Parts: sequence; C-alpha cells; structure tokens
Amino acid sequence: MQPVRIAGVAVTPFGEHPDRHGRDLFAEASDRALADAAVPHADIDEVLYGNFIGEVTEDQGHQGPLVAAAAGTTAAATRFESACASGGAAMRAGVRAVRSGEADVVLVGGMERMTNVDVHEATDALALAADDLHERRVGMTFPGAYALLTRAYLREHGGSREDLAAVAVKNHEHAMNNDKAHLQQQITVQDVLDAPPIADPIGLYDACPISDGAAAVVLVSEDYADEHEVDAPVAVTGTGQSSDTLALQRRVNRAYTPATERAANTAYDQAAIGPDDVDLVEVHDCFTIAEVLALESLGFYEPGAGLSAAADGETAADGDRPVNLSGGLKAKGHPVGATGVAQIAEVTDLLTGEHPNSDAVPDATVGLAHNAGGTVASAIVHVLEVTQ
Amino acid sequence: MQPVRIAGVAVTPFGEHPDRHGRDLFAEASDRALADAAVPHADIDEVLYGNFIGEVTEDQGHQGPLVAAAAGTTAAATRFESACASGGAAMRAGVRAVRSGEADVVLVGGMERMTNVDVHEATDALALAADDLHERRVGMTFPGAYALLTRAYLREHGGSREDLAAVAVKNHEHAMNNDKAHLQQQITVQDVLDAPPIADPIGLYDACPISDGAAAVVLVSEDYADEHEVDAPVAVTGTGQSSDTLALQRRVNRAYTPATERAANTAYDQAAIGPDDVDLVEVHDCFTIAEVLALESLGFYEPGAGLSAAADGETAADGDRPVNLSGGLKAKGHPVGATGVAQIAEVTDLLTGEHPNSDAVPDATVGLAHNAGGTVASAIVHVLEVTQ
Repeated sequence: MQPVRIAGVAVTPFGEHPDRHGRDLFAEASDRALADAAVPHADIDEVLYGNFIGEVTEDQGHQGPLVAAAAGTTAAATRFESACASGGAAMRAGVRAVRSGEADVVLVGGMERMTNVDVHEATDALALAADDLHERRVGMTFPGAYALLTRAYLREHGGSREDLAAVAVKNHEHAMNNDKAHLQQQITVQDVLDAPPIADPIGLYDACPISDGAAAVVLVSEDYADEHEVDAPVAVTGTGQSSDTLALQRRVNRAYTPATERAANTAYDQAAIGPDDVDLVEVHDCFTIAEVLALESLGFYEPGAGLSAAADGETAADGDRPVNLSGGLKAKGHPVGATGVAQIAEVTDLLTGEHPNSDAVPDATVGLAHNAGGTVASAIVHVLEVTQ
Repeated sequence: MQPVRIAGVAVTPFGEHPDRHGRDLFAEASDRALADAAVPHADIDEVLYGNFIGEVTEDQGHQGPLVAAAAGTTAAATRFESACASGGAAMRAGVRAVRSGEADVVLVGGMERMTNVDVHEATDALALAADDLHERRVGMTFPGAYALLTRAYLREHGGSREDLAAVAVKNHEHAMNNDKAHLQQQITVQDVLDAPPIADPIGLYDACPISDGAAAVVLVSEDYADEHEVDAPVAVTGTGQSSDTLALQRRVNRAYTPATERAANTAYDQAAIGPDDVDLVEVHDCFTIAEVLALESLGFYEPGAGLSAAADGETAADGDRPVNLSGGLKAKGHPVGATGVAQIAEVTDLLTGEHPNSDAVPDATVGLAHNAGGTVASAIVHVLEVTQ
C-alpha cells in the first residue's frame, strides 16, 4: 500500500461570497493548493470533489468535470455528496486512490455556496440530508434535529446549558486568530444564553453560520514526493467511515453517535494509534452538542463526560487536547461541501507550524479530523501525522 | 493489487414506478444481487451508490446511508453524482475499494426515480448536468445538446438520418427479449423518421425514455471468493475515467468524444487488451448519435465510420460485435443513477450465459461497459472478462 502525503493545502476565506460562482471559489482554492504543493496542474491524476446542495443553490449538478476544468485538467473527476460530510468523502476517496497505486497526485476539494439564496431556502436545502419520509416532509430542519439530540443528551447525562455554551465561546475564541473565519468575534457564555432561541434548547449561538467557501488539498504518493522532492511532511495514516440510519426515530440511543465511533476505530487501527495519542482535533461542531457527541464517540471522553470539557478548559488552545483550533464550523463557518476538506487543511497547517494557532501546539505530531453528515448518519475520520 | 470479481448482479424492471420510493427500488435490487452472490449482508464492507437528481425528484439527498440501511448495513456508504455516469462512478470506486485491499465485499448500486415528477420538471432536472452559466440558463436541455452533437457529426462526416435511425431500431429489437426493458416494442426506420421532432435533427425515437429503476452489483476480492467458495467467474480487469468541459462551446471538435477515448485507453491498458479483443459492448446511447460517438471513441470504428454500423448489421445480436444487447438506454430505459450499474449487470449476465440474449454470444469472454455524463463531460469505461 502506497503511503499518502499531503503536499499542499488551501482554504478560501469562509463567509459571504454571494456574487462569486462556485467554480471560481474552487479555482482559487485549487490554484493555491497546487502552488503550495509546487505540483504542476499537468500531474493531476484525479479530481475528487465534495458538494452538497449545488443543484439547489447554483442550479448546477455534474460539478466534477466543471471544477476539474477550473483546475486546468481533464483528469477523472468525481463529485461526492454525503450531505455535510461530502468533503470528507472526497478526501477518503483521494486517500484510497493514492494507496491503491492508481494515482500519484490527487486534487481533493470541496465547495459550497449558500448565502446567494434566501436563508429559509438554504435551511430547506440542508434538510435534504434528513430522511424525507420520516423527517423532512413533516417539517424537521437541522436545528430541530440537533435540539432533539441535545435534549436526549441532557436527559441521559444531565449537564448545564452553560457548559454547552462554553463550546461556542471556546471556538469563537480560537477563530480570533484565523483570518479565514466567518465569525471573528469574541462571545461570552451569557451571550450564548441570551441569543434568540431557534429550537429549544438550542439558541442562535449554538449553531454554525451559513457560509460560502472552498478548500483544496493536494495528496501525493510517497514515491511521487520522493522522486519530485515535494515537501510533504504530513502523512494521512488513517481513514475510517461508517453510517447510521438517516431518521432519528430509528436510533436506539440519541445521546451517542456510533457511526463516529466505528469510523474512528477504523482510522485508529490503520494508524496504529489510540485516542490518547492524538494531539489536536478538528470535529464537526455544526451545533454545540455536536462537538460534545464527537469527542465522546471519538473516545476522548466517556459518555456524559465530554460536556464540561470546554468549560473546564481542556479543549482550549492551552488545554490538554485542543479542539477546533480553526474556530470549528461554529466560528470558522460551514460551507458544507468544503468543510471536510478544510478540516484537513487546518490540521495540516497546525501540524507544520503554518497555522495562526500553531503556537498553541508546538509539539503536536498527530492530528485528527472528524466530518459528519446529517445527524451523524455519515461519519468520516482521518488521522494525520508528521512523519519528517 | 487484489483482483476484483463480480459475485452477484440484479436489475429491477426499468419503466414507470412512480409509487415506489427510491429506497424500496434499491432494496429490491440489492437484496436480489446479494442473494445472487450468496453473500450475507453482514459481510458488506462498503456501499457505493449512484444517483443523479434525487434532491429534485425525491426531495432526498444524503442517500448513501439511506440505501445502506435499506440493504441492512451500517457500513461506510457514499453517494456518487456524475450526472448520467453516476452509476459508473460508483462502480469504479467499488473496483478501487477491492483492489486496494481495504474491502472484500462491496455493494455497488444505483437508482433513479423520474416518472413521479412532470416530464418538463424531469427534463429541467436533467439539464443540471449542463453548464449553468453557459448552457442551462439560456435554455439548453439535453435533446438540444445532442442535436448539436448530431449536427456537428453529420457536418463533419456526412451520413444519413436513416443510418442513425437504424441504431434505435436495433436496440429496440434487442430489448424484445429483455423483460426488464422499459420499451419492448419493435420499431422501423420509418417509425423513427416519422416520430415527432424534439430538437432538429433529433426525433422522439432517437431519444431514450424517462425511466425509474435500480441496479446492484456485488463485488468481491478474489481472496474472499476463494475462501468462501463464491461463484464469481467474471472479473473486472479494467476501469478508466476521464473528463471534458461541461459546456459544448468550449470543445474544439463536437463530432468526437475524447473523454471516452481517454477512459477506454486506461481501461484497455489495465486489462492488457485492445478494442479488437472485445466481444460485446454496452454503450451509453441516451440518443442515437451517442452510440455512434461512443463506438468511434472506444476505438471500434474510425471517426465517421461508426454511423453505418447498425444499418450494416455489424452491431446487431448476430453481428461481429453486438452493441447494447440489453436494449441500451434507448429501449431498456435510462433511470439515470442506475444505468452505469445496470450495464455491468447486463454484461455480466451476457458473459455467463444468464442473459435472455446470451444465445447470441455463446463464445463471448470479454465485455465492455461505457457510461457517460452530460455531453460526455464524464466518461467511464469498464472491461469485464470471464476468467474461469
């Protein structure tokens, strides 16, 4: 199996770009990632690309060849749609393409445009990730779905709204250094508690914003890196994915996300590590409860013990295991198809000292990225390690 | 690299199933394919699934985990969208999953529902495969796009509408034995010429119908097949994919499809064969010209020489190299996401003697499947060979 190295990464600013077409946003990310990698466009063997709702927000399907052309190649190009885990799905396929020996250079990317449509239209489009028969058509949207998860968690384990709010406060704090973040503003626990309710017990500040943006990562085989003297100190040593029922009503325990646990265990096994070996983490915190569920299902905390991690400072930049140093989906933003790829870019930069928050983790060598779709009906986990 | 075997295949009847949900259609195909393979659901390592316009016709995105649940598994599940090549993209990823050694059993599938919406809505949705900025928003739909390709071909090479019509006549003839075909009716060249024009010079009988349906294929590693004594005589020995610009205006030559040529060359190289070694072919004949373009770009005919192949009987069941013995998209039908997977199922059954048209090809050992997206902006080619 050919080892997989990360040769270049790029993330566009996340935020509101309603006047920029998706292909344009993606081209910015892919050009910069290829320049970062110092790999010529002509060497791209494959383009693997995540996008969730382009049919609705851009009237554009079949984006694989479209973004490949934007990146200057006619290589095989495929679009992945796994709801909010679309970027992670593209990343995972990229890792496999290199591991299999069938590709030496893979351009992995993701993009979403959402602010060009009305916020209600965007919310409706995002609800396409839920089960139409059992959830969407009876009016469920994702704030409602995550409110149910929050209620299930608090009923099962107890805990305070203040502890949950601390997750948002921490991630906003982390975003203050990240000039690509959508929301660069400090907030307090009281701000979160005072925010308008959107689906009880969730308030506006428990939710990530609706963002536009793109991200790209250039993966290369170790052989290619050696032959072309590509500077690629970070390797992808583990990838795991698992599924769960789309509909929440089919779940036995809504206070836990087993798909994440299964995905993580595969990734840990491949990398021959355990949760204790991980120095820094980017998790899919579309809502505050999502970060808590992720940390527990990834094995960092026992069920019920993850809620207070942010309030106790354990997951802060100066804590034992920083979580979402990018600002997370919560503050960095969540252009859906780009998110899973942007996480890889952020972890890479954090590990190589090129991230604005790298100073917080000078000795970090192992990072983890966790991308989820729907109410974690899709979970995808990658382990990245500094190897040089 | 682990060799890839086809252990089981299934195709639902193609046609009008407006009252059956997509998950239900897919479950029929996946259950039958798993039964055909005699592989237990519990052994599925991954579900790879093609669907094009579920967001529009079923209000349903994130179908990967949904259909995995329908197939009775929480394995990693991913939806592929490459327009009309979505099924081929899923198949290709399945081959890579097994080759890489990361999966022993992969359920590859595809599904589309289209007749539950108005035909104009379906036509609009299909146009999402075109370039929004340069084609869709100025009113281009796919009959129009393929009319442009037809005009370009006839201008470049000459040729008659009668020869083009013979493609449709042949594929309808082939469908007469295939009880899964959407259109089981014989037609004549005169019928094609007399059919209502839909985009000059294309008439209604030059176009495939709008169909519902699903297909599934169970891929296994050779090691798994040997260990579990799985009857899997057909191997996938080649897979290739390439891209082209979405917008026709960007193409230098609209009388040829270079993405198909590039995809075929990769697949031929992997299988260590050339076009002359292929005994039977399923190509993506969404319109009559599409079959002609495919045959030329696959290397079976020189440019300009493929138009008369059907009229000359060369591609008929009793010809030198039968093309679309299933009836093709033209007569079998084209439930978009299912098509690329159904082609694999048809070729497999033809090679193993289990197809209603197998009698026409008793000595066939090498088959090829060609799936295309948009105006062949995506092309995916697989080579299948009998190995036992």
